Amino acid sequence: MEGEERPDNVVYVGKKGVMSYVLAVVTQFNNGTQTVVIKARGKLISRAVDVAEIVRNRFVLDAKVGNIVIKTEELMSEDGNKSKVSAMEITLSK
Amino acid sequence: MEGEERPDNVVYVGKKGVMSYVLAVVTQFNNGTQTVVIKARGKLISRAVDVAEIVRNRFVLDAKVGNIVIKTEELMSEDGNKSKVSAMEITLSK
Repeated sequence: MEGEERPDNVVYVGKKGVMSYVLAVVTQFNNGTQTVVIKARGKLISRAVDVAEIVRNRFVLDAKVGNIVIKTEELMSEDGNKSKVSAMEITLSK
Repeated sequence: MEGEERPDNVVYVGKKGVMSYVLAVVTQFNNGTQTVVIKARGKLISRAVDVAEIVRNRFVLDAKVGNIVIKTEELMSEDGNKSKVSAMEITLSK
């Protein structure tokens, strides 16, 4: 266990296929990271749950789901309008 | 789903508009329930997060997010094929 938390232990889930993000998380664990945080917003939240579930059920069997946080973030569009979007963070730890 | 018992303090998020489920949760709190569990599967998970966030930010300001559980459920289709789907439960408590 390295003492320092590294900034690269966050995986942002976007519009690529779910396995792209699974691979990103698995790669971080294989590189020695002990904790990976999976983040997503809006409709991509359900994909983030898929990523966490696939990682821990198929690839990193000793990974456990830690803290799960939900929150609301405010987005500013280019024309200056604000809108709110739900966001989620799932922590996976070995 | 047939014959499955649905305890009062659970709200299953489906394909209706998000405010239908917000109303269902708010109604339960107004009826004196102290804890409501919001459940969803697959792509509806992101809507469940919206429901929880809207309830606690706009309608039931003393509601707090409690336990959040993610898991994988197995579905059996009519032709006997099995498929897996992610599921989530969000507990809101006053």
